[in-house]
Amino acid sequence: MARVTVWNEYRHERESDVVADVYPDGIHAVVADALREGGHEVRTATLDEGPDHGLTEAALDDTDVLVWWGHAAHDEVRDAVVDRVQERVLDGTGLIALHSAHYSKVFKRLMGTSCSLKWREAAERERLWTIEPSHPIADGIGEYVELAETEMYGERFDVPAPDTLVFTSWFEGGEVFRSGCCYRRGSGKVFYFRPGHETYPIYYDEDVRQVLRNAVEWAAPGDGPAPEFGNADPIEAIDTSDDRTVH
Amino acid sequence: MARVTVWNEYRHERESDVVADVYPDGIHAVVADALREGGHEVRTATLDEGPDHGLTEAALDDTDVLVWWGHAAHDEVRDAVVDRVQERVLDGTGLIALHSAHYSKVFKRLMGTSCSLKWREAAERERLWTIEPSHPIADGIGEYVELAETEMYGERFDVPAPDTLVFTSWFEGGEVFRSGCCYRRGSGKVFYFRPGHETYPIYYDEDVRQVLRNAVEWAAPGDGPAPEFGNADPIEAIDTSDDRTVH
Amino acid sequence: MARVTVWNEYRHERESDVVADVYPDGIHAVVADALREGGHEVRTATLDEGPDHGLTEAALDDTDVLVWWGHAAHDEVRDAVVDRVQERVLDGTGLIALHSAHYSKVFKRLMGTSCSLKWREAAERERLWTIEPSHPIADGIGEYVELAETEMYGERFDVPAPDTLVFTSWFEGGEVFRSGCCYRRGSGKVFYFRPGHETYPIYYDEDVRQVLRNAVEWAAPGDGPAPEFGNADPIEAIDTSDDRTVH
Amino acid sequence: MARVTVWNEYRHERESDVVADVYPDGIHAVVADALREGGHEVRTATLDEGPDHGLTEAALDDTDVLVWWGHAAHDEVRDAVVDRVQERVLDGTGLIALHSAHYSKVFKRLMGTSCSLKWREAAERERLWTIEPSHPIADGIGEYVELAETEMYGERFDVPAPDTLVFTSWFEGGEVFRSGCCYRRGSGKVFYFRPGHETYPIYYDEDVRQVLRNAVEWAAPGDGPAPEFGNADPIEAIDTSDDRTVH
Repeated sequence: MARVTVWNEYRHERESDVVADVYPDGIHAVVADALREGGHEVRTATLDEGPDHGLTEAALDDTDVLVWWGHAAHDEVRDAVVDRVQERVLDGTGLIALHSAHYSKVFKRLMGTSCSLKWREAAERERLWTIEPSHPIADGIGEYVELAETEMYGERFDVPAPDTLVFTSWFEGGEVFRSGCCYRRGSGKVFYFRPGHETYPIYYDEDVRQVLRNAVEWAAPGDGPAPEFGNADPIEAIDTSDDRTVH
Repeated sequence: MARVTVWNEYRHERESDVVADVYPDGIHAVVADALREGGHEVRTATLDEGPDHGLTEAALDDTDVLVWWGHAAHDEVRDAVVDRVQERVLDGTGLIALHSAHYSKVFKRLMGTSCSLKWREAAERERLWTIEPSHPIADGIGEYVELAETEMYGERFDVPAPDTLVFTSWFEGGEVFRSGCCYRRGSGKVFYFRPGHETYPIYYDEDVRQVLRNAVEWAAPGDGPAPEFGNADPIEAIDTSDDRTVH
Repeated sequence: MARVTVWNEYRHERESDVVADVYPDGIHAVVADALREGGHEVRTATLDEGPDHGLTEAALDDTDVLVWWGHAAHDEVRDAVVDRVQERVLDGTGLIALHSAHYSKVFKRLMGTSCSLKWREAAERERLWTIEPSHPIADGIGEYVELAETEMYGERFDVPAPDTLVFTSWFEGGEVFRSGCCYRRGSGKVFYFRPGHETYPIYYDEDVRQVLRNAVEWAAPGDGPAPEFGNADPIEAIDTSDDRTVH
Repeated sequence: MARVTVWNEYRHERESDVVADVYPDGIHAVVADALREGGHEVRTATLDEGPDHGLTEAALDDTDVLVWWGHAAHDEVRDAVVDRVQERVLDGTGLIALHSAHYSKVFKRLMGTSCSLKWREAAERERLWTIEPSHPIADGIGEYVELAETEMYGERFDVPAPDTLVFTSWFEGGEVFRSGCCYRRGSGKVFYFRPGHETYPIYYDEDVRQVLRNAVEWAAPGDGPAPEFGNADPIEAIDTSDDRTVH
């Protein structure tokens, strides 16, 4: 059980009838539902919720895993909030970056690359193949997940090579894409998951919802050591006397 | 909760008083205890338990994670049993290879390399540093684990680069060693954990016991897809008609 | 400039007219040509060249990089030769495993997994996308290589996660495949490269030939240290006196 | 042969007699010498060389590999220059980050983590072990490089797991450190190399100089594809007629 904050830009849903039809209460509502089905304690936050976009220190104090969906207003996310989120991830908070969040300031900050890719809006079919079946994010998922209509993302995806590549997608137009990528950053875990264009009912798909739940479980903070940095202890005297036990 | 089989060569303990003093009921007994403390269901098996060394198909059917300790009689493990264990790991069974098991047929089979290293028996101090604090195998472990007297293992350790490097050890004599290494093989997970020379009470150490429990949790089979190999379905007709929804 | 041995099973070319039409002098002849264009010194060897399949100790002494193509007679490769090849790779000799060599004893030995995959013979189109443009194996290659007619290989490809994933393929039938995979084994480098079904003129393709040349350059032995294994030097006395320079 | 720019903060050398004794013409002069011995064309640039710190667009146009040494004035590097350097690296320019450059804006930008570590100034002995002997950065290097007096850096080093770990260091005081780390970022290659505290004559050491030359060779831009991002071509008609050649 993790405490999750689902952060969503929440602009398209309020500006476009096509998107509002798919996500009448916002993408965050549907994603949050999927996560609650997994027993997680889920709150939501959106871009326009105050200067902190709902991501105050207090909200982040209560967040084990942050899920991020953004698309057209990445630049409106204040740098101070991006700093804060990066700090929390390095400190142990998990981050699930969804679809167009590849271009979010938060994801780009943690990757260090442009995170650019090819795209095409042609309602094309996607097959998301499971590359690493032993990974917990693939729990309950089949050999592939088929999504009838999607927005294509194609390589070359300018990200660092993932620590673990869980899924790779096929698109009918000829492209491939590393669609499920695990990273460790500081004490935190980051999972990039590709599907989720706002005009298609992707987050209602049962397999996609299962992956979201798996990802939150995986990304939740562990109980490992909090490293101390800086000036280390002086060298202690080392006993190198000869009377040591040799076998 | 996993069903664990702790496999031990169990020769030194019966042949050497020094070792028998440390492990009167065998290394497997102490390791099994540590795992039962984590709520796992643990059986043991040893080299001399029949032609299958206790690892019959039935025993492996009931094994989620296999823990392996061997040292001086690796060559006495029958190839048919090695084949069987490799098959199970590729099928999802976890494997925890301890200390001198780096030279076990089972571990070498899954690595494809010589698994050679440098060693020295001089009761020297080891500091096992946590490299990846976000990894579940580091749960409840500190910045480092100190073991007062150990047998040194030193780089270069001829193994494939681990998928995740969890621990790296320092030895007072000047060597370093990648002492906690995660690998995925087929649908299975393998963890190599260095400490455990038979003349020192390593497996009574609380941190070492914690790592063993963490490792079993991590290596337990997941619920991902069982890939099907071989001749795939014919290509289906792909609808590339022009009337597709473009946004 | 590397000394290359191109090893080919060389059965299909002599048993099937279809294949003989494509490779009248054997697949090895065409691959060897491609490599000579890169200035390499190339010899060939085949399965039926004596009990050593042409891979005597002397031949291997003169081999910097071994290229391997095999398909229907993997089991006829003698284990003693497989042992020898594995030893050489661990010692620094490069290995390029082509197409159906994924099932060769040599490749499986170095991987430790089943190396299984899905396949389909339907003369389907493949797009081999460059995932890691900074890697030397991608030198002179475009964003993707298109092969009009191929035998499909599809995930899940049961190999260890590559150290570097250079290419990933798209197949018109819906599959993806990690088609260019780099591994380090011992002091040697291994590159698995997928294309190359015997009934299609794959090894005449200019891009494929460029990849072969790049791969040989990459896999050629370096000049790094030859690790020494075994009993290490005793611990020297360490000077921990207080009069050390502190800044 | 690469065109290299060695960038150095060049403050300590001008402010401290101790440092000036070791590097009378600046750290950059000694590093540049080492690289010229490898046949590279080397220029230098320093923090105080104008608003661009010597890293104008023109200078970067002529730079294949950028070597960076900085320590006490990272914050004085203008963000516009950091942006420019990051862009060049993603575009193919290599980056060698030395010692305290782990805290440089440029390196931190490309890593996405804090890049923090433990340190101690006690003139202690370091043994830099070769972990991956097959890697070209280890060419001409032995099993380990010994440096008599260094400033210790200790894990946990808060960086992403390197794509390849080439070296790991041992320090007499008890710490270990991943001292030679390769990363790919965009079309560029980054190598972090630990040794190099300004009060010790590290860059005169023959092995260190060899590693610097190897690193520049490795990091130099390749000739791979320049990926195109953005809106991809429309889906072409795919011929799925039945008359395809099946073998």
